[in-house]
Amino acid sequence: MIKSDVISIFSQNMKELRVKKGLTQEELSFKAGLHRNYISDTERGRRNVSLKAVQKIASGLEVTIQELFAQTI
Amino acid sequence: MIKSDVISIFSQNMKELRVKKGLTQEELSFKAGLHRNYISDTERGRRNVSLKAVQKIASGLEVTIQELFAQTI
Repeated sequence: MIKSDVISIFSQNMKELRVKKGLTQEELSFKAGLHRNYISDTERGRRNVSLKAVQKIASGLEVTIQELFAQTI
Repeated sequence: MIKSDVISIFSQNMKELRVKKGLTQEELSFKAGLHRNYISDTERGRRNVSLKAVQKIASGLEVTIQELFAQTI
């Protein structure tokens, strides 16, 4: 597996998918049940999020968890 | 996305992939750079692991992160 940083892959995918879906960070935070600051910190790669947060973000974006770890979108 | 529990999906996939690769928990803990108890707790679904731990487990198993979140193996 290429040694790329999972946190930057995850945070970039998360932002791209949110923008693609036309959601604001506020709307995603509401849909995911996570605080808005948590969403913005995570998108900036500042959080080593847990599996449960990953599931909340995936369901808030209505994507599969695998999509959040895709190497290229 | 079907509301299944990401922790049980992850822990089952992790164990199945480890056994498929013929690795003991000890060998995986060495390859992943994680404590053996951490590996066994995670396989029993007792840990809400972080992204960095997910990356270590994936690289210790020599699989992609997506494989660890596959709904069926």
